[in-house]
Amino acid sequence: MTYCIAVSLKDGLVLTSDSRTNAGIDNVSIYGKMHAFCTASDRKIVLLSAGNLATTQAVIDQLKRDMKEETAVNLDTVNYLSEAAEYLGRISVEKQRRHVDAGQSSFNPSATFILAGQIGQEPHGAYLVYPEGNCITTSRQTPYLQIGENKYGKPVLDRFLKIDTSLHEAGRCCLISMDSTMRSNASVGAPVELLIYHRDSLVLDEYYCFQEDNEYLSKIRKMWHEKLKEAFATLPQFSKEDSRPLPGCI
Amino acid sequence: MTYCIAVSLKDGLVLTSDSRTNAGIDNVSIYGKMHAFCTASDRKIVLLSAGNLATTQAVIDQLKRDMKEETAVNLDTVNYLSEAAEYLGRISVEKQRRHVDAGQSSFNPSATFILAGQIGQEPHGAYLVYPEGNCITTSRQTPYLQIGENKYGKPVLDRFLKIDTSLHEAGRCCLISMDSTMRSNASVGAPVELLIYHRDSLVLDEYYCFQEDNEYLSKIRKMWHEKLKEAFATLPQFSKEDSRPLPGCI
Repeated sequence: MTYCIAVSLKDGLVLTSDSRTNAGIDNVSIYGKMHAFCTASDRKIVLLSAGNLATTQAVIDQLKRDMKEETAVNLDTVNYLSEAAEYLGRISVEKQRRHVDAGQSSFNPSATFILAGQIGQEPHGAYLVYPEGNCITTSRQTPYLQIGENKYGKPVLDRFLKIDTSLHEAGRCCLISMDSTMRSNASVGAPVELLIYHRDSLVLDEYYCFQEDNEYLSKIRKMWHEKLKEAFATLPQFSKEDSRPLPGCI
Repeated sequence: MTYCIAVSLKDGLVLTSDSRTNAGIDNVSIYGKMHAFCTASDRKIVLLSAGNLATTQAVIDQLKRDMKEETAVNLDTVNYLSEAAEYLGRISVEKQRRHVDAGQSSFNPSATFILAGQIGQEPHGAYLVYPEGNCITTSRQTPYLQIGENKYGKPVLDRFLKIDTSLHEAGRCCLISMDSTMRSNASVGAPVELLIYHRDSLVLDEYYCFQEDNEYLSKIRKMWHEKLKEAFATLPQFSKEDSRPLPGCI
C-alpha cells in the first residue's frame, strides 16, 4: 500500500509520501514514491505514485525517455501543469493496457499519480491523475490531494489545512496524517519523504527524508500521542441522568 | 453508509451507531441501526447493522419471528453468544440469496452485523458477522469491532481503547471516533445512539440518543477540535538545516 499527500497553498507546495511497497504481506520492500525530473530550468515537476509498481516505473521511465528523445510532447514542452497531467494520464493508460491481456483475473495494473510543481510564470499547483487518465486539482476549500490509503489520515487534514496555512505547518500536518495512517495500516511505512516548494522559487532544495528512527519524527509522533491522550482525558463525561432504557427491549 | 462500533471491555460493553441510511445521495433517511430483542430474562442481545437496508430489516424480522414461533433455534434457545452469531449468519446468508437472481448487476444485498450481549452465566461479548455468515470476536489486544465506514474513526480507537478502559471513557472515545467519521463522510450522521452495558447486570437501562444539536455532543465535538488545534500548535518545527535538494533532480 501507499500513502501520499500533496498540499497546494498560497505560499507553495508540500508533498509527502511513504516508502513501503508490497506484493502480498510476505513481499515487502522499500521504494520511494516521490520522483523528480531533470526538466528545463523554467519549471519544476514532481510526481507521487501509488498502485502497481511495474506500471508506475514504466510510466516514469517513459516520461524520462520522452524528454531525452525530445518527442513533440514531453515534460519540457508542456506549457501548463494541467497539460502535463493530461500527458501523464495518456501514458499511464497506455502502460496499464499493455499487460492486461496477459494477466490473470486478479491482475490489477492500475496506478494513480499526483503531479505537482510549477511551470514558468504559471501558478504552482497539483493534479491527481486517475488510472483512467482523467485528473482533478485542488481548490481553496480543499487544498490537498491524497492517493493510496487515504482515509485514516484524512480527518487531521480536514481539521487543520487552510489555503493560507504556512508551508512548515502544513508539513507538520502531513507528518501527523502519515502517523495516523502508519499506526492503522502496516503496509504504509517509513522512510517518510517530505518536500517543501516555495512559490516561484523554481528550486527543489528543501527535501527531508525521515527514517523510521528519525529523532524528529519519533518526537512529534510521541508528542502528538501524548497530547491527544491529555486532550481526551479532559473531555467532560456524559451524564447518566440523560440515559434511559433501550427502546424496543423489555 | 453506516458507522457502528462495539467495544467489549472487562467491565462490560459499549455500543455506538449512527442513524443515516442512503440509497444514493439523493435519497437519505434516518434509520436507527441499534436493535434490541425482547428475549428471556436470562439474556440480553443487541444487534448493530450495516449494509442493504432490505436485508437487515428482513434478518431482524426473521429473528423476531423465530422467537415468537419458538423455532428449534432462536435467540431465546441459544446457549452461547457465538451460537447466536452463527445462527444470525445463517439467516443473513439466506436473506441475501433470496433476491440475488432478481437483481441487476449493480445490486448488492450484502449486510454486516455486530451481535453483542450476554447469555446467563456466560461472559459478555461481541461478534462481527460477515455477509458470508462467518464471524469474529474481539481480543484483549483489540477490544473493539467496527462495521460500515470504519477507517476515519479507527486511529482514535487504536490510541485509547484498552481492555481495562472504563465504560464511560470508552463511550467518549466512541463518540470522538464517530465525530471524525461524520466530519469526513457526509453519509454518516446523527442521531448517534450509545448503549452502555454493565457486566452481569442483564439490563439495558443505560441508553443515550444524541441528536445533531445535542448540547453534550456539540460540546465534546467542539472541545475535541479545539484541543487538537492547541496540541497541533505546540508541535516542534522540523529544522530547515536537515533539508537537502531532492535527489534525482538538478
